[in-house]
Amino acid sequence: MTEAHVTAAVLVIGNEILSGRTKDANLPYLGERLAELGIRLAEARVVPDLEAEIVAAVDALRARYTYVFTTGGIGPTHDDITAECVAAAFGRPLIRNPEALALLQAHYAPGDLNEARLRMANTPEGASLIENPISHAPGFRIENVHVLAGVPAVMRAMFEGLAPGLTGGPPLRSRTLTSKLPEGALAAGLGAVQERYPEVDIGSYPSFRDGRPSVAVVLRATDEPRLAAAAEEVGALIRDLGAEPRETG
Amino acid sequence: MTEAHVTAAVLVIGNEILSGRTKDANLPYLGERLAELGIRLAEARVVPDLEAEIVAAVDALRARYTYVFTTGGIGPTHDDITAECVAAAFGRPLIRNPEALALLQAHYAPGDLNEARLRMANTPEGASLIENPISHAPGFRIENVHVLAGVPAVMRAMFEGLAPGLTGGPPLRSRTLTSKLPEGALAAGLGAVQERYPEVDIGSYPSFRDGRPSVAVVLRATDEPRLAAAAEEVGALIRDLGAEPRETG
Repeated sequence: MTEAHVTAAVLVIGNEILSGRTKDANLPYLGERLAELGIRLAEARVVPDLEAEIVAAVDALRARYTYVFTTGGIGPTHDDITAECVAAAFGRPLIRNPEALALLQAHYAPGDLNEARLRMANTPEGASLIENPISHAPGFRIENVHVLAGVPAVMRAMFEGLAPGLTGGPPLRSRTLTSKLPEGALAAGLGAVQERYPEVDIGSYPSFRDGRPSVAVVLRATDEPRLAAAAEEVGALIRDLGAEPRETG
Repeated sequence: MTEAHVTAAVLVIGNEILSGRTKDANLPYLGERLAELGIRLAEARVVPDLEAEIVAAVDALRARYTYVFTTGGIGPTHDDITAECVAAAFGRPLIRNPEALALLQAHYAPGDLNEARLRMANTPEGASLIENPISHAPGFRIENVHVLAGVPAVMRAMFEGLAPGLTGGPPLRSRTLTSKLPEGALAAGLGAVQERYPEVDIGSYPSFRDGRPSVAVVLRATDEPRLAAAAEEVGALIRDLGAEPRETG
């Protein structure tokens, strides 16, 4: 399986995701956008708002992947501990970042910039800021770790601001062929196509609607001619099995 | 932070989640249901369909948490490798499970039970089956690891079948108080409540609608009287700040 060699991990920080209260919306967004940038999202973790857990996950992921993106835990309340944890992971002191402080001072009326909100100006020493065009309190980057907000609209704005500075490999293209076959009918032929196209990543995703099976075959590769050839073979396979492939993505 | 001492991890297996193609729906379901059963979902990971990644994650999680639930990768196609990987993680041979085979033989017409579908009868040696009332191919349990389907309807049916056999601690109760305050106004007072109630896990979740802030304070604990007392204090805090708390969950 050959994909882009530039990799990323996402670390979702927050009890609310683990309790089921909040459905994470950031992971699919980042997965899709990173793929467009030629960066393969290779792993994601969700950890609670506990320092030891966050530090361990940041450390494990930053050593392993080209880029790490964290979401959540950068607000003003007691459960927002991401900045401290990232500082600890890098063994750097947590400082009140002067540039972040200036941003908050420009946004809040003097009486409103209380101690809790001032915490949002804390970053590890040496971090550079990530702009927050929506609610102003910035994210930050330190080495390969990008610390983003958890609120999806803010996370997206932060990510789009930093995206032009990310260096990806060739973008991963994808084709999706859906048919009303049961997955098990397609499996042998699909495995054979996968063997002939090791550089194309072929996934098979079954679903059931009104009890009737359908299967989406997703092909992903950086090499367009090989992707097209593999998709052609999958389409032929589906037709051989008496169904009609629909291109659905 | 005191919560239930029985813990769980969810391991989501599948390239489609990391590529952003598929939004995971299983994690919030499991987080919520486990909490009701007195089991704290303490971590989740998403890994691609790669043997080394799946084996490493199964090993890390099963050593650390009371229960592990995997989702995905148990279908008939070449990218369904969860059973092999769990067998490898436990150092056990992968066998054609006779009981699983009988289930498939009862479901499929003889000509339809091809080699690909027969793979769905493979389990690590010594695994016990988890019933699949929807599409018949079973999941399985080995020690504390429960291997479930990725298709949400099937995953849920499997989980509900095994849920009565899980041993939880006291259920985690929660209260949610929402108000139209900006999070930063609430932060100092909320931190003080958290300090007075270390056994209640208090989270603060901001959102913005039409540019106007709102914040949901979620309190979770196993001890109902302490939970009620902490929620009372949070309500009073919100009123002191000139807003009206709404109980939203």
